[in-house]
Amino acid sequence: MPARLADLAVRFGCELRGDPDTVVDRVAPLQDAGPGAISFLANAQYRRHLPTTRAAAVVLDAATAAQCPVAALVSDNPYATYARIAQLLYPLPAVAGGRHSSAIVEPGAEIDPTAWIGPNAYVANGVRIGRRASVGAGSMLLERVQVGDDTLLMARVTLCAGTIVGERCVLQPGCVIGADGFGHARDRDGYVKVPQVGAVVIGNDVEVGSNSTIDRGAIGDTVIEDGVKIDNLVQIGHNVRVGAHTVMAACVGVSGSTTIGKRCMLGGMVGVAGHLTICDDVALTGRTSVLRSIEQPGVYSGSLWADEAQRFRRNVARFNRLDELARRVQRLETTGRNGERGGCDE
Amino acid sequence: MPARLADLAVRFGCELRGDPDTVVDRVAPLQDAGPGAISFLANAQYRRHLPTTRAAAVVLDAATAAQCPVAALVSDNPYATYARIAQLLYPLPAVAGGRHSSAIVEPGAEIDPTAWIGPNAYVANGVRIGRRASVGAGSMLLERVQVGDDTLLMARVTLCAGTIVGERCVLQPGCVIGADGFGHARDRDGYVKVPQVGAVVIGNDVEVGSNSTIDRGAIGDTVIEDGVKIDNLVQIGHNVRVGAHTVMAACVGVSGSTTIGKRCMLGGMVGVAGHLTICDDVALTGRTSVLRSIEQPGVYSGSLWADEAQRFRRNVARFNRLDELARRVQRLETTGRNGERGGCDE
Amino acid sequence: MPARLADLAVRFGCELRGDPDTVVDRVAPLQDAGPGAISFLANAQYRRHLPTTRAAAVVLDAATAAQCPVAALVSDNPYATYARIAQLLYPLPAVAGGRHSSAIVEPGAEIDPTAWIGPNAYVANGVRIGRRASVGAGSMLLERVQVGDDTLLMARVTLCAGTIVGERCVLQPGCVIGADGFGHARDRDGYVKVPQVGAVVIGNDVEVGSNSTIDRGAIGDTVIEDGVKIDNLVQIGHNVRVGAHTVMAACVGVSGSTTIGKRCMLGGMVGVAGHLTICDDVALTGRTSVLRSIEQPGVYSGSLWADEAQRFRRNVARFNRLDELARRVQRLETTGRNGERGGCDE
Repeated sequence: MPARLADLAVRFGCELRGDPDTVVDRVAPLQDAGPGAISFLANAQYRRHLPTTRAAAVVLDAATAAQCPVAALVSDNPYATYARIAQLLYPLPAVAGGRHSSAIVEPGAEIDPTAWIGPNAYVANGVRIGRRASVGAGSMLLERVQVGDDTLLMARVTLCAGTIVGERCVLQPGCVIGADGFGHARDRDGYVKVPQVGAVVIGNDVEVGSNSTIDRGAIGDTVIEDGVKIDNLVQIGHNVRVGAHTVMAACVGVSGSTTIGKRCMLGGMVGVAGHLTICDDVALTGRTSVLRSIEQPGVYSGSLWADEAQRFRRNVARFNRLDELARRVQRLETTGRNGERGGCDE
Repeated sequence: MPARLADLAVRFGCELRGDPDTVVDRVAPLQDAGPGAISFLANAQYRRHLPTTRAAAVVLDAATAAQCPVAALVSDNPYATYARIAQLLYPLPAVAGGRHSSAIVEPGAEIDPTAWIGPNAYVANGVRIGRRASVGAGSMLLERVQVGDDTLLMARVTLCAGTIVGERCVLQPGCVIGADGFGHARDRDGYVKVPQVGAVVIGNDVEVGSNSTIDRGAIGDTVIEDGVKIDNLVQIGHNVRVGAHTVMAACVGVSGSTTIGKRCMLGGMVGVAGHLTICDDVALTGRTSVLRSIEQPGVYSGSLWADEAQRFRRNVARFNRLDELARRVQRLETTGRNGERGGCDE
Repeated sequence: MPARLADLAVRFGCELRGDPDTVVDRVAPLQDAGPGAISFLANAQYRRHLPTTRAAAVVLDAATAAQCPVAALVSDNPYATYARIAQLLYPLPAVAGGRHSSAIVEPGAEIDPTAWIGPNAYVANGVRIGRRASVGAGSMLLERVQVGDDTLLMARVTLCAGTIVGERCVLQPGCVIGADGFGHARDRDGYVKVPQVGAVVIGNDVEVGSNSTIDRGAIGDTVIEDGVKIDNLVQIGHNVRVGAHTVMAACVGVSGSTTIGKRCMLGGMVGVAGHLTICDDVALTGRTSVLRSIEQPGVYSGSLWADEAQRFRRNVARFNRLDELARRVQRLETTGRNGERGGCDE
């Protein structure tokens, strides 16, 4: 859907530097953009592409606007403004109410007439689906699932019995919400399965990535609060609570019964042990392992990074005797101080 | 299904302290429980909730029973006893024999009449399904798959050609059993695919979590022995053997041709390299990388944990020169001994 | 399909030592092989099984051929030669053109008559499927997907709108190609979804493992070049480019907008941060975290490995104060040099 720069500036509160009648109808990266495309600059790493861009316009901040060779939409938050402009240029198709001829809907399901049930989807008894919600191809909604208004199940989403999903959520393909948590009590001859009797309750405006898994509570519910964004291949254990507006990058794992605060940021591959509490406003850089509760907001890290393999190996070999090395340093300090080995009689 | 405390005590061999006629009909956490709910105390971290619990009864051990303000079921293994009580209160619905009208079953499949084939499930030729087994919605059972008695495929489970699953197993949604392993032989111009001709053989009483993957053998089979419990998003490579009653938490990866012993415990995100052997009774804490075979039972670790980011970065910078640091300490020790630098002529 | 050793030797350019008329019809590991089976030796770890093997023949290199007690096919690259022989012995069944009666194909799809659409598969409008391609059971091909000649979607593969897959690819069950990338712009009250408007473009001869996920570009495309091999549970973020003939073991994660070169090898659980460039011919050992671009070919590592837990813990405790330890060593060196503490006046 094309838009005039003047209209974009007014609608999204930007200062416009350039021809207000220029029309844009698509987005493109700075280095690939041509006439008709709008681009953005939000990451300093890409500033080098700005002087040569051939975009029709660029969304950027005041500090970089001067170097912009084309029309500029100046914004305090160029990335969010770009996102809103892109939403306008690429509107989601309206959900057409009804159902595909191949959808299987049990008679006891309550589906708003404005909702869509896609091909090969299955909707069990007791399911309730809200207005303009879309159940994508091949999705499986088991007993008593609830899906709020305007929520999109993209395709092949599995919502197990009793799962509740709020409004305006987006669930990507392959995610599994509400399956059994991992509960097995050790006994003489192996393990006894602990019945998982809680549900998963997902708030509004939540996104869950492809093939991610969120387990139902063992006892009580697993809760994902409003505005949480979860990337692909993330695992959320039973009885976890994730606070509002927390984001998790791909391949994160959160063990059971842990509570994560609001507005936290978990980098890719972060792992959090079970039965912990992480307070609000904590950022965990990629691959950090959290083994104790965190009570202070801030940034935490915990993973080494790539080095040339031979050198790395030598350093690990030293790490594996680090306690001994530290004791040797201590001994040196002591002998230095008391003269036993550092004295002039040697 | 409600139960009298007296009956629970007799059935599960607990000592009952409290009114034998009290009836419970559900489970709840200590801090949320009310009348009619039974709770349990197995993790010391939650003992603080015991004095104020309003549960009808609590399953706990002799050491904590004295502090229980309500009826107590005293057990040597409170968690396992709780699990059995919960199984009684929340019985799985009996599997109704037959098939959903939307299920696709090829004529050459042999399905016990007491088994259930769910909506949109597909059962190929040569498949054999045992008594009271349940093939959940959207599951795909390809050629020659065998599913044992009382096994539950929860929903959208994929069993590739030739996969054998034992009795009383539970396979969670999205898991993929028996797909090709990762076999590619390097050659001049890229890679040649190595045909994967083995199968996956899963024993009895095995659980596999949501979206986990277990690859077929390249040559010979991949074997999961009885009683193994595998959490979500776990990867088991081709020709792996996992010993009986071993448990794996979420996001574990086991590379091809590795053998893991019996009664092992793999914490979340553990990674095991290929062609190794891990003996029985090994515990690997979360995110440990195993690069060599382990021949002694015991507990092994291998991952750092979260620290404040600035401090962590400084420590990593030192780690990256740790070999050099160790050499400097060595030099100090030597010069200390031989007086080259520590002498009084300086 | 049985084969004479003489024919195999000619066809694959091996030197044959043994009876040219011996026939083999299956593969087996050295230690389990019997009459009629061909085996191979490519990993020195298994050489101990060579003297006692009862295989009909073994594929191996000149250095080990002398110890082979049975017929030998001597090859410069035994593993690749074995792969080709196994392909011959276990030919893939030819794809039968047509569609299963339960397949749902929209009228606007263009499917070559030699392609197969399996049970419960869904093919949307605008999809194009090439010659002899196979769309396995339960696969979902959304709008405008293209699948090249001879490509196999094994089962339950999801190709989101606009995804392009080349020729001779193999996509394992549960993989999700072309879902939204993780794009959310932080704003005052949470996050704004950044429309993901690019596609995924996959070249020829690519393999993607079970339950792996490859996200569509946010702006521009995500590109997987020819010959790339991706194992299970791998995550590829939006706008990533993976160079030709690069291989990735299971559980790898590549963050958005990163470019990986040609012929790279990523071990299991490797993680690569976003917006980086890794040059051609880089090998990353298992669980390495890449936080900066890599400009030199070579081998890089970055993960500790398993040690006995008590010792490991002590070493981590020292690591967490490593910067301080290094300062102490520095102080020792200085005081040694300037005599402040090491002098003979103490």
